[in-house]
Amino acid sequence: MTDQELRVGIIGVGLMGADHAERLAHRTSGARLVAVSDPDTARAGGLAGRFDGVRAVTDPLALVGDGEVDAVLIASPGFVHEEQVLACLEAGKPVLCEKPLTMDGASSLRLVRAEREGGRALVQLGFMRRFDPEYARLKALLDSGRLGRLLLLHNIHRNKDVPDSFRSEMIVRDSLVHEVDVSRFLFGEEIAEVTVYSPTPTSAAAEGVIDPQVSVFRMASGAVVTNEVFVRNQVGYEVRCEAVCERGSAIAGRPWGDLYTTAGSGDEGVWGGMVPTDFRDRFALAYDIEVQAWVDATRRGEVVGPTAWDGYAATVVCEAGMASLATGAPVAVDIVDQETLT
Amino acid sequence: MTDQELRVGIIGVGLMGADHAERLAHRTSGARLVAVSDPDTARAGGLAGRFDGVRAVTDPLALVGDGEVDAVLIASPGFVHEEQVLACLEAGKPVLCEKPLTMDGASSLRLVRAEREGGRALVQLGFMRRFDPEYARLKALLDSGRLGRLLLLHNIHRNKDVPDSFRSEMIVRDSLVHEVDVSRFLFGEEIAEVTVYSPTPTSAAAEGVIDPQVSVFRMASGAVVTNEVFVRNQVGYEVRCEAVCERGSAIAGRPWGDLYTTAGSGDEGVWGGMVPTDFRDRFALAYDIEVQAWVDATRRGEVVGPTAWDGYAATVVCEAGMASLATGAPVAVDIVDQETLT
Amino acid sequence: MTDQELRVGIIGVGLMGADHAERLAHRTSGARLVAVSDPDTARAGGLAGRFDGVRAVTDPLALVGDGEVDAVLIASPGFVHEEQVLACLEAGKPVLCEKPLTMDGASSLRLVRAEREGGRALVQLGFMRRFDPEYARLKALLDSGRLGRLLLLHNIHRNKDVPDSFRSEMIVRDSLVHEVDVSRFLFGEEIAEVTVYSPTPTSAAAEGVIDPQVSVFRMASGAVVTNEVFVRNQVGYEVRCEAVCERGSAIAGRPWGDLYTTAGSGDEGVWGGMVPTDFRDRFALAYDIEVQAWVDATRRGEVVGPTAWDGYAATVVCEAGMASLATGAPVAVDIVDQETLT
Amino acid sequence: MTDQELRVGIIGVGLMGADHAERLAHRTSGARLVAVSDPDTARAGGLAGRFDGVRAVTDPLALVGDGEVDAVLIASPGFVHEEQVLACLEAGKPVLCEKPLTMDGASSLRLVRAEREGGRALVQLGFMRRFDPEYARLKALLDSGRLGRLLLLHNIHRNKDVPDSFRSEMIVRDSLVHEVDVSRFLFGEEIAEVTVYSPTPTSAAAEGVIDPQVSVFRMASGAVVTNEVFVRNQVGYEVRCEAVCERGSAIAGRPWGDLYTTAGSGDEGVWGGMVPTDFRDRFALAYDIEVQAWVDATRRGEVVGPTAWDGYAATVVCEAGMASLATGAPVAVDIVDQETLT
Repeated sequence: MTDQELRVGIIGVGLMGADHAERLAHRTSGARLVAVSDPDTARAGGLAGRFDGVRAVTDPLALVGDGEVDAVLIASPGFVHEEQVLACLEAGKPVLCEKPLTMDGASSLRLVRAEREGGRALVQLGFMRRFDPEYARLKALLDSGRLGRLLLLHNIHRNKDVPDSFRSEMIVRDSLVHEVDVSRFLFGEEIAEVTVYSPTPTSAAAEGVIDPQVSVFRMASGAVVTNEVFVRNQVGYEVRCEAVCERGSAIAGRPWGDLYTTAGSGDEGVWGGMVPTDFRDRFALAYDIEVQAWVDATRRGEVVGPTAWDGYAATVVCEAGMASLATGAPVAVDIVDQETLT
Repeated sequence: MTDQELRVGIIGVGLMGADHAERLAHRTSGARLVAVSDPDTARAGGLAGRFDGVRAVTDPLALVGDGEVDAVLIASPGFVHEEQVLACLEAGKPVLCEKPLTMDGASSLRLVRAEREGGRALVQLGFMRRFDPEYARLKALLDSGRLGRLLLLHNIHRNKDVPDSFRSEMIVRDSLVHEVDVSRFLFGEEIAEVTVYSPTPTSAAAEGVIDPQVSVFRMASGAVVTNEVFVRNQVGYEVRCEAVCERGSAIAGRPWGDLYTTAGSGDEGVWGGMVPTDFRDRFALAYDIEVQAWVDATRRGEVVGPTAWDGYAATVVCEAGMASLATGAPVAVDIVDQETLT
Repeated sequence: MTDQELRVGIIGVGLMGADHAERLAHRTSGARLVAVSDPDTARAGGLAGRFDGVRAVTDPLALVGDGEVDAVLIASPGFVHEEQVLACLEAGKPVLCEKPLTMDGASSLRLVRAEREGGRALVQLGFMRRFDPEYARLKALLDSGRLGRLLLLHNIHRNKDVPDSFRSEMIVRDSLVHEVDVSRFLFGEEIAEVTVYSPTPTSAAAEGVIDPQVSVFRMASGAVVTNEVFVRNQVGYEVRCEAVCERGSAIAGRPWGDLYTTAGSGDEGVWGGMVPTDFRDRFALAYDIEVQAWVDATRRGEVVGPTAWDGYAATVVCEAGMASLATGAPVAVDIVDQETLT
Repeated sequence: MTDQELRVGIIGVGLMGADHAERLAHRTSGARLVAVSDPDTARAGGLAGRFDGVRAVTDPLALVGDGEVDAVLIASPGFVHEEQVLACLEAGKPVLCEKPLTMDGASSLRLVRAEREGGRALVQLGFMRRFDPEYARLKALLDSGRLGRLLLLHNIHRNKDVPDSFRSEMIVRDSLVHEVDVSRFLFGEEIAEVTVYSPTPTSAAAEGVIDPQVSVFRMASGAVVTNEVFVRNQVGYEVRCEAVCERGSAIAGRPWGDLYTTAGSGDEGVWGGMVPTDFRDRFALAYDIEVQAWVDATRRGEVVGPTAWDGYAATVVCEAGMASLATGAPVAVDIVDQETLT
């Protein structure tokens, strides 16, 4: 690993990007935040001013080309990702791109091809759950062979609440996309078919929004995954995964951690704990580990973690999911053969 | 309630019937076992000999007609249930019938009609989970309104192992049938559609047997239920149900009860507990409560718990499930309208 | 076992006795409640009237002598136990006596001697925890040798609240007495020394009452037990026991059973469950099993479970505990040598 | 905070010091490891060689005086701490000192006085549990007032195994010292009296070694703490703390995190998880947070976390504990009045 600190620029400093800025400045070893860019220039300027030696750059592509920037972290909205990732590839700069890679399979595939044509792996996708210690231990347990072959997954993904503007399709593309990646990660194979069920919605959902959603994946090998995504559960953030194997099962993400007892609202007492309401609380450590791993790998000239291909595959599965959401019928996932990519 | 003890006869004294005989003789208040019947007359005789004042009767219909028998518990195989339940109805004798009510919807419906024509409720179905304290508390919690309207159920049903003769269809009819009843019980409505998925089977399954199975129910109101049934998990008996509501969720049947720590097989220590391997261990208390409730209600001249209609509905749903198992496609549940039954 | 039902009389029909009356009448096999006695004759009469064929008897000793009464259950206050148990011994009638056996060691020892002189075991003490499935499984696990020799116990005993009249000494004699019996039961040996610590009391305690109390037992072999008894915790009833062995540890009585999640009072969600507030909820099944075991054993002409000696030993330990409560210093337990009893 | 990286030297690179070297080099933001010192010069040289720009310095006091070293992390054995911390104080360099501060109260007090005379806070003690997220949340919950005043603590501290050379006194001074600090931290007051009980030892303990140990603290205000320290439990590392308050209780450090089920060694299945065997696994995150907090505070010119006074107080309590271990009697803690220190 080089002794030089990695100089990082962040594109997009909304909630997620600002969180990453804090992380790079205060909790990451071997990296230094040097530049930020955001269409909201006041926001970019305000953030830059909170750190020593960080410049606000108006044009995100100028940030990519900036000679002081060694690597780029993209936390902008998905619809500008294609152009920004492409600029990084052209500049030969490593990039950590928050999901989704792009908004549709065709554009994601263009990025996959562009990276391959460049001859050097540069893209890491921001599927942070792979770095969560619980998911990582689950993956290690499955890979150890101790429980035998993986047969089924049951994923649960609940948020306390979202704005009314978070519509049914976004539940597929922005929430279920994590279960898509987790399923591909734990099985180590592609998803072949998606069925999205539309249960009677919660009364907390806006008119016409399907929430919760239940979906079923068929993996390429024939294994089956069930998913619940419920983003207005009125309780908190709960992400859980149960893996069912030939000789045992295992759960990651049990909410029941710390324990207290206290008087309840009525005559009875209660025992229990808190459910976090912010996904950044639940996955704060995963993000820290993800960014540190990216910095370390980049300084070694490598890419670890989910790749552009993982971003492309997730996008294609979500496209199938949105098609199934519209009809209720199973939809096959139309993914190119990774072997045939030049 | 009458001061008289209820004199009970049992038809079928295999594992389940013998278990009920012990229960009636030693753990049930207000009842007395007086007669048993089984095609294996040696088995019936041996069992009768272990209790004071219990006769072995060769012909099950003679047991039903026996003047000393006030009520009948049927634990024989499902294919003889129609004739035996009908005999009880004709004799006007209360009957607790183990599931299934009969082998197909048409015959189950005949029993439902026969009971109604007799003008007196006499049949209780042996869906013991309704009497399990955990399921009962879950039902009470849902009915309290505290968590809001029920939106989704996720059922898990695992057995350690079964004989090779336990084929794919039996997983639907003899195992999934419990999830069918639990779903109808907790939602308080009928199941409208069933889809049975066929994942790649475990290597512990015999050639051609689909195990585990994943299935999805659509309830009449549009709510959705997911089910996993896995009867050769090589671990133990695990039955669990998570209910997802508008303002919270609740789980019945967590396996993690008693706790110990000890040295593991390798360097690490382990914490945990035992998973029972026999369903009668898991539901021993439920069976005790079920039979006591049946005895108490019968002495009061009432029927409590699941009815012949519940038995009919479960049979019809399982028929749809077996059709879906064959094709993988959703199958509508063809149930008569309860309101139109005369 | 005789085919005859055991005809039982109950002395004392306060909360505990009335609970036992319901149990004998409705949830116990092979027994029949035939008589009750209570100084509050209206209470006795009212209770008797709720069951068929149960008489209210004014004089408790007349109940003991009643020809229709085969066995006696004593649920009266401790200060009348000596006379009532003695009457049972003289009448040769089996007796299930709620704790304490008597109010002091000398009188308890007189009962132990009287029973031995009668030449027939007749007394079972009402230490119901021995029949609780969790404590019974813990005992079985310890006896299995799987975790190695038992080294330490940590007992927790909490109640939601008690009247102000429940003073410091009663916390020793009526609450800690259960930990005394559990410790003797699990170790299978006597307690040699008791130290009772007096922490700063909770503000919920009346002036001058020491609550919670922490105490330490030294067992005869040198093993050590810690106890917390806190009877005004404002939450609920929580009884727990951790056994620490040479090769592992085990816990009985974890409160965290059923699980739900729901919105909390503030912004966060909560997960957890209910803590029962009534000890009879926590130990309902233990009482059922205890009384059924007593009835079954009595019909076989045997005594199972804790004996008069266990009642005597517990009383003597509590006397030492009350002496230590007064001074804070360790107090040796002055128990006679069981071997030297004639 | 200064923009300059903090240049750190480590004294003592055994297990703990080498762990800190990795932490500073790869997981800490804003710090750079520049020098290490160890009596085992080969060990120091080997470690230095694994990092860019790290020198091995033979004399630990030379490392303290080195112009390139801004701050010192002491992970050497306790008996050399006095001289090394004193050198840091004289050089005006911030120091993070692993526990114990020194080997006895008198020398610890000399350091406390020396720091005060220097007029600037420079010493942070390495009680890492204060930085463990579970303990930190417990502290926050107690401070929130939600559960009312803290009344009792129950601490459990178990290790899988230690060498035979780890004698009874070391269990007090090197293990129980953590419970001493946790108790002072959570109560926010001093410990007034210690009683150490000597149970019959485990057969895994060497001849003459008292293990496990049970001890009781009386806090200055009268509250009571129970402790179990058992360093040869043959299972794994388990550290737990239950806080009992006026309106509830709370537990930090439950071992039961991840969950799996699998076949057991016999017929039954098991559920459970792994117990870590290395304390660095359990507290890895706590150490990371501790060192990051030290670096951040030092760069701001502040000291956070436990102080030299906390180190002194813990040492004095452990001296009392060792005295009580010898006699079994309660021993008062002879601590100077913090207010009277000039």
